Amino acid sequence: MSGKLRAAIVGSTGYGGVELIRLLLQHPEVDIASVISSSNAGALYAEGYPHLSEIITDRLEAIDVEAMKGKADVVFLATPHGVSTELSPKLVEAGLKVIDVSGDLRLKRGDVYEKWYKHKPADPAYLERAVYGLCEVFGSDVLGADLIANPGCFPTATALGLVPLLAEGWIDAETIVSDAKTGVSGAGRGLGLSYHYSEINENTLAYKVNRHQHTPEIEQTLSRVAGQQVTMTFTTHLLPMTRGILVTSYAKLTQKRTDEEVLDLFRNYYEGRRFVRIRPAGKWPATKEVLGSNYCDIGVSVDERTNRVTVISVIDNLVKGAAGQAVQNLNLMMGWDEGLGLAFTPVYP
Amino acid sequence: MSGKLRAAIVGSTGYGGVELIRLLLQHPEVDIASVISSSNAGALYAEGYPHLSEIITDRLEAIDVEAMKGKADVVFLATPHGVSTELSPKLVEAGLKVIDVSGDLRLKRGDVYEKWYKHKPADPAYLERAVYGLCEVFGSDVLGADLIANPGCFPTATALGLVPLLAEGWIDAETIVSDAKTGVSGAGRGLGLSYHYSEINENTLAYKVNRHQHTPEIEQTLSRVAGQQVTMTFTTHLLPMTRGILVTSYAKLTQKRTDEEVLDLFRNYYEGRRFVRIRPAGKWPATKEVLGSNYCDIGVSVDERTNRVTVISVIDNLVKGAAGQAVQNLNLMMGWDEGLGLAFTPVYP
Amino acid sequence: MSGKLRAAIVGSTGYGGVELIRLLLQHPEVDIASVISSSNAGALYAEGYPHLSEIITDRLEAIDVEAMKGKADVVFLATPHGVSTELSPKLVEAGLKVIDVSGDLRLKRGDVYEKWYKHKPADPAYLERAVYGLCEVFGSDVLGADLIANPGCFPTATALGLVPLLAEGWIDAETIVSDAKTGVSGAGRGLGLSYHYSEINENTLAYKVNRHQHTPEIEQTLSRVAGQQVTMTFTTHLLPMTRGILVTSYAKLTQKRTDEEVLDLFRNYYEGRRFVRIRPAGKWPATKEVLGSNYCDIGVSVDERTNRVTVISVIDNLVKGAAGQAVQNLNLMMGWDEGLGLAFTPVYP
Amino acid sequence: MSGKLRAAIVGSTGYGGVELIRLLLQHPEVDIASVISSSNAGALYAEGYPHLSEIITDRLEAIDVEAMKGKADVVFLATPHGVSTELSPKLVEAGLKVIDVSGDLRLKRGDVYEKWYKHKPADPAYLERAVYGLCEVFGSDVLGADLIANPGCFPTATALGLVPLLAEGWIDAETIVSDAKTGVSGAGRGLGLSYHYSEINENTLAYKVNRHQHTPEIEQTLSRVAGQQVTMTFTTHLLPMTRGILVTSYAKLTQKRTDEEVLDLFRNYYEGRRFVRIRPAGKWPATKEVLGSNYCDIGVSVDERTNRVTVISVIDNLVKGAAGQAVQNLNLMMGWDEGLGLAFTPVYP
Repeated sequence: MSGKLRAAIVGSTGYGGVELIRLLLQHPEVDIASVISSSNAGALYAEGYPHLSEIITDRLEAIDVEAMKGKADVVFLATPHGVSTELSPKLVEAGLKVIDVSGDLRLKRGDVYEKWYKHKPADPAYLERAVYGLCEVFGSDVLGADLIANPGCFPTATALGLVPLLAEGWIDAETIVSDAKTGVSGAGRGLGLSYHYSEINENTLAYKVNRHQHTPEIEQTLSRVAGQQVTMTFTTHLLPMTRGILVTSYAKLTQKRTDEEVLDLFRNYYEGRRFVRIRPAGKWPATKEVLGSNYCDIGVSVDERTNRVTVISVIDNLVKGAAGQAVQNLNLMMGWDEGLGLAFTPVYP
Repeated sequence: MSGKLRAAIVGSTGYGGVELIRLLLQHPEVDIASVISSSNAGALYAEGYPHLSEIITDRLEAIDVEAMKGKADVVFLATPHGVSTELSPKLVEAGLKVIDVSGDLRLKRGDVYEKWYKHKPADPAYLERAVYGLCEVFGSDVLGADLIANPGCFPTATALGLVPLLAEGWIDAETIVSDAKTGVSGAGRGLGLSYHYSEINENTLAYKVNRHQHTPEIEQTLSRVAGQQVTMTFTTHLLPMTRGILVTSYAKLTQKRTDEEVLDLFRNYYEGRRFVRIRPAGKWPATKEVLGSNYCDIGVSVDERTNRVTVISVIDNLVKGAAGQAVQNLNLMMGWDEGLGLAFTPVYP
Repeated sequence: MSGKLRAAIVGSTGYGGVELIRLLLQHPEVDIASVISSSNAGALYAEGYPHLSEIITDRLEAIDVEAMKGKADVVFLATPHGVSTELSPKLVEAGLKVIDVSGDLRLKRGDVYEKWYKHKPADPAYLERAVYGLCEVFGSDVLGADLIANPGCFPTATALGLVPLLAEGWIDAETIVSDAKTGVSGAGRGLGLSYHYSEINENTLAYKVNRHQHTPEIEQTLSRVAGQQVTMTFTTHLLPMTRGILVTSYAKLTQKRTDEEVLDLFRNYYEGRRFVRIRPAGKWPATKEVLGSNYCDIGVSVDERTNRVTVISVIDNLVKGAAGQAVQNLNLMMGWDEGLGLAFTPVYP
Repeated sequence: MSGKLRAAIVGSTGYGGVELIRLLLQHPEVDIASVISSSNAGALYAEGYPHLSEIITDRLEAIDVEAMKGKADVVFLATPHGVSTELSPKLVEAGLKVIDVSGDLRLKRGDVYEKWYKHKPADPAYLERAVYGLCEVFGSDVLGADLIANPGCFPTATALGLVPLLAEGWIDAETIVSDAKTGVSGAGRGLGLSYHYSEINENTLAYKVNRHQHTPEIEQTLSRVAGQQVTMTFTTHLLPMTRGILVTSYAKLTQKRTDEEVLDLFRNYYEGRRFVRIRPAGKWPATKEVLGSNYCDIGVSVDERTNRVTVISVIDNLVKGAAGQAVQNLNLMMGWDEGLGLAFTPVYP
């Protein structure tokens, strides 16, 4: 209808899916053609999400490649581990463009995927074919691609905070420690004691210490940028808030630098990229300052006493960390302005 | 510039002001011409609100009617009690359209204002001239007006939940009790021990019991609709959340009714008004289901045992309860579609 | 051991159970003899509750009346609907004292229980035998009893706020509306989408409107005190906090009264009852002011305009609303000081 | 009265002061003799803290050394920077025992204090005389002391997580990075925009990056234990919760170690110290698991890939991080059991 690009969303009942709907509803060049879920087909979408009453009146559809072929041009996969592994090849063969928001196609090496995800990896040909869509770093690969591996939430925030330093060799790759903090929505809508309100309200804890599956994804990006194997320490913490990721990264500088020198490096690296904003010296971003938006805000501090640089990077995990970057990848893929449909001012307070 | 309507925002550094900026940035027919504050003139706006870095690059301006006359067509007042009393007449005389988001012009009777607000009331001529912009009830008054008294947050949620019942005489006006719950942002950005995080987190309390200044505003609306003097009980509670108002209203039905009859009454009354959504029987809305949006969602329940009807109405206090309805009033005033620039899907979760 | 009273806790893995453990650990005359759960027998208790590491080193035991008979003097039941119905008679017959924290034995009429709980009611003889332990109102019934129905959380807070007014006939029993707000822990440790952090954080909603099973329990108490059938409107709301209940009750005064007269009524009624504290005129309690303690704090306001009185009462739902009142009932039952083991100062902030 | 030790609390209206009151009320050997504040003398204490209504009926007293001499044996100082600098010498000379919960006497070197606190340091003789009361590490110094510098909240959590490793030379002191997260109550009751509910709810941010005044205090402890100068990177983050500190510390191991080896090291080091609890391998503590209690819970993880050890340590900042450790120091000073009056089970959930 109307000459717009038609989008289908598989896994539309999860938080990544519902955020895709919020964003695509604002996109001037996209129509939502189908909301799809592996369970619950036939139910009214808005029954599970009353905030979309009178906005989304569609019913959920089952996963059906033929049906998607008939009604969609692009398919977003906001699915649990393992679904995209099976589904993406079929969709691509059916001539559909695919943006995979899950983790299935992000790691180029199947053995690494298997080690960290404890799942069977996807077909190597498709791992190879998938373009890793970290827009501000590898965005030029995305134009014209038909299969995008959309980066994870932690890898987006962490890599954007470290890439300029590694690209220029300003930090010692052996010394990187990234300490990540996330809101609870990152864990999705699936129930669990750790996400039960009475347990995580007024509480914080570390989880999957030294075992988080986003670790190799970050390392893959950093290694590619650094031109050498980067092995790092990465820790995740759950915070009593719904949205937001803040990553504090530490590394030794290879030579003395000032705050301003480091800030200039970041400003130059991200020049012209509207979704990365650099705070001035002595200021650091807060997660709420990007809430609901596609921004990644970054602040830095050099410690003369230890010659370490500290980088703080924040995103909304459901936007820049998932649905927003997926739309940004769609824009790049189609050759549109990368900010199309993403001009959301953060919701503050 | 560009033939758009030029808006100035006085009191732009409060939460009502910054929310107006978020909404007007999305409005296709409005340019933000000036951000104004009684203090801090000359400072960069985004220094106080880093989430608007690189979005709002303006500096704060002092209050200056002549300057506004030169650069703006419409002025929004998001100011503390007493400012609009002085400023609105000057702005109107200068030929500017004024939308007053403060409480100064809402009550038609100056003596009532003085009793509840403990402030000197505005000039009676301007109290008379100000159009009370409760859009779904009195929206037809707004077209072509030059001075709008934008309703308060509690009065909006409370009145929208009671007006259909009173308009049709379905409830006994003597029996109305409204129990309101609000997020903390309603208290603004000014510091206070009650809004200190450690005090109000994991806490709830009633405040201004039987003394809240929004009481006469609600009664004025209900009386006008009912065609008789309505005196009610209204209580406000502070909740540990930032945004959202939920009002639970109780009244005796004048005769037996079913849930469906009451729901039909509401559906008919609000037919064609996109920002009011009625939940089906047995379902009640949650504040998060309207967060960031201009919706007022309503659910009802009739209790056969007591012959009371319970109405639950929710809004985002900063949107439908302040900045959003102000923009809606601007749309109505200009003869535009009332939803222009307000097509925000609620942010969920 | 040590001549202390030996307590067993059935349903010890729920929030009511774990709070009983916290309180009984401080009780000078009680030893925790057994922690019991219908599932998970054999597991170390502290594995599910690491905050009790090195404090509770016991393993969970299965429900076994004979075993309890051998090792306990009193049994606390912190179990889901239906368990006490079956278990209490057996325990009483085995000569054990029973304090039932569940709702099974609170309603004297089995048909009313069945209507609101949708469960089969307990044996009428045991409904009759169970003493309803609202300590500050019916405490004199408790001494020497062997079967206590411990009041529900909402009924405790609501009734304590209304009983003095009804006992003296100061309010019109036909006009009572109680609007209750609760923290999420009242829903227990069982998972549910409504208690999923990302759903209820920064959110509030009404639930079970006109259908909450605590309604007849409150009415039973109020009717008994008033000496006439009381039918009321009672609504519950879920708030984004873990602990705490605040109930705002409204009723028409039968004649003009001042704040001070009403406060004196309350002060006189609760004289000598240390766990009820009355705020002075113009002040109302906050839930955090009783957090972690057995207090019920109360504030009132008379509205001359409507001749309604508003009563605000707050408790910690897990203490005065469950485990704390259960311990208080134990104290009364045994003829001990009612505050034994309950001298917890609220945890603030 | 009653032969108990008489305690005065200076700075009793802050969060550290009110928490001291909560704890001392439970202490079997201490009476609260005087609640003191530099402002507000004469006011009823409970007016500012209604949760203590009918519990603390005293009025606030002004700071008066002579008066304290007459009525107290020990004085707790829970005061802002600079007060103890002036007051402690006078109190000690008056023969009173002093436990200083502020930061004034913690750093042995006045020049270091001046650099980080931007305040004039205390008299070197008193800096020397003050015993640094990190109970589980330097507790043996405390017996019989008359002037205690009670450790800061971050230094307590951070040092307890690193001391065993440094004491045995298991980590490279050049590689330590500690990433700290704190609840908002650590900032006290003084108002500030950063602690305004609407700003910090649903938000997290870093602050004082590379400039936090607790850095040299941690380094002083680590250096003393390691027998060499330790310089580290220390970052603090504000979290949307009231109580709790979680510190994640990272360091390179000097040789390969397993989780179990590191855990054994911790278990041995803290053997017999009831307030430190070590989680088993693969488990890490949450702040809520110590809320309201004097525990410091610790978990560790060794990463074979990087040969770094990660240590997670949690405390309640107002208890083990302030008032609780102060009472523990009183116990050690007096030769009492270190747990006297501190047998609080954490409040969970």
